[in-house]
Amino acid sequence: MKPHSRTSIKDVEFTDRDRESLYKTIFNRRDVRGQFLPNDIPDDKVARILQAAHHAPSVGFMQPWNFIVIRSNTIRERIFQSFLEANEEAAKMFAKEKQENYRSLKLEGILDAPLNICVTCDRSRSGPVVLGRTHIKTVDLYSTVCAVQNLWLAARAEGLGVGWVSIIKEQALHEILNIPEDIVPIAYLCVGKVSHFNATPDLEKAGWRKRLPLEDLVFFDQWKEQRADGSDSLIDEIRNAGNDIGKYKFTS
Amino acid sequence: MKPHSRTSIKDVEFTDRDRESLYKTIFNRRDVRGQFLPNDIPDDKVARILQAAHHAPSVGFMQPWNFIVIRSNTIRERIFQSFLEANEEAAKMFAKEKQENYRSLKLEGILDAPLNICVTCDRSRSGPVVLGRTHIKTVDLYSTVCAVQNLWLAARAEGLGVGWVSIIKEQALHEILNIPEDIVPIAYLCVGKVSHFNATPDLEKAGWRKRLPLEDLVFFDQWKEQRADGSDSLIDEIRNAGNDIGKYKFTS
Repeated sequence: MKPHSRTSIKDVEFTDRDRESLYKTIFNRRDVRGQFLPNDIPDDKVARILQAAHHAPSVGFMQPWNFIVIRSNTIRERIFQSFLEANEEAAKMFAKEKQENYRSLKLEGILDAPLNICVTCDRSRSGPVVLGRTHIKTVDLYSTVCAVQNLWLAARAEGLGVGWVSIIKEQALHEILNIPEDIVPIAYLCVGKVSHFNATPDLEKAGWRKRLPLEDLVFFDQWKEQRADGSDSLIDEIRNAGNDIGKYKFTS
Repeated sequence: MKPHSRTSIKDVEFTDRDRESLYKTIFNRRDVRGQFLPNDIPDDKVARILQAAHHAPSVGFMQPWNFIVIRSNTIRERIFQSFLEANEEAAKMFAKEKQENYRSLKLEGILDAPLNICVTCDRSRSGPVVLGRTHIKTVDLYSTVCAVQNLWLAARAEGLGVGWVSIIKEQALHEILNIPEDIVPIAYLCVGKVSHFNATPDLEKAGWRKRLPLEDLVFFDQWKEQRADGSDSLIDEIRNAGNDIGKYKFTS
């Protein structure tokens, strides 16, 4: 049989509409803490967001992730207690004038959301030498984060909110979820239907920090080289693309 | 003025078609190494994928990322030399019988792709104490990875291939790109138009590793607790969702 020539390959076509749907998802994804509803999530939705996660890129095709799907009230109650403890320590780390603002923020939905998912990384999944992990050793952790981001976007398109709880001690996750010491918990996520999504990130809304202008974060060829000759048109386009984002959003 | 009541919030609606576009993007995203074309990429496309990255979640709304957009042949040539050096070291780390397979793999597109982007993390972007980074210290690195994954998906929908080069020494990236020691290079990406996308990951195609069955990677409530009572329906749905993925793909 004659091998396929390059032109015989039937590629998947992406339409303007596909692109718009993707950008709509990306620009309206939120870190949800305060709007979870207790309603059960249909298993088919949970299955799809997990498949989305599982189709993330991974170094050496290692697929180092596991997903602990947590519905138990007892387990979530223990996680919540650990959050409270860590959060009290956290509050005290901020300057006096920021502590009041910090304490007023709702930073998790552990018990409000009906489902929590802990995403972990098994660093020995494919043996000690991993293709692509030979020099930068953290790339397997990064692969697992890519899975988290896929899950997050899929959830948004499924109408589900996701909130990443990072104010917790890693050791507490090991103990409460019985995670072996050599497995790294990467993300503890709260997942559920929501009353609504906010149009802007909670921390932006609360005046904690502002969105930075992207054009200030882009360099050319080397660190801190901005707007090299002939590259200004990219900066212009970055501003244009920024102005276009409004069309994907809504006002609340 | 009367405050908005919950029901007055006009949320963005996601249709079945939006969801399908997102899944199509996720399931057809590839780590591209071998199919780059030298054609220039229009600046508006580059701008949009950078905006997608910039709208990733970040701990404490820190937005710790920078994007070094590399078009210079001289810089890319130096990066490529660093890759070659690291790749030779890497090959020798594998067992004898795997070395031949390893050496036959095309693992980067540094010079083939017209654009490289180095995504970095500035850990001190918002001061020493970061909301959400008080206990798990690596979450700012993870935020930056979320930006990479957003960029990757946006690129796929724009018809651009992206390949993540991790076979390089971190110190070489600091030196060649003039990145300060306290800034962490997270991802070195090759970006460009492609002749075609492969239907399956390169490493799967090359017989390096297989896709794992997702149902084996999902636990219930605690590590290694599989198929707890009443949870089997999720496992069934995971299989169903897995079978449905074929409809988003193509055969080459």
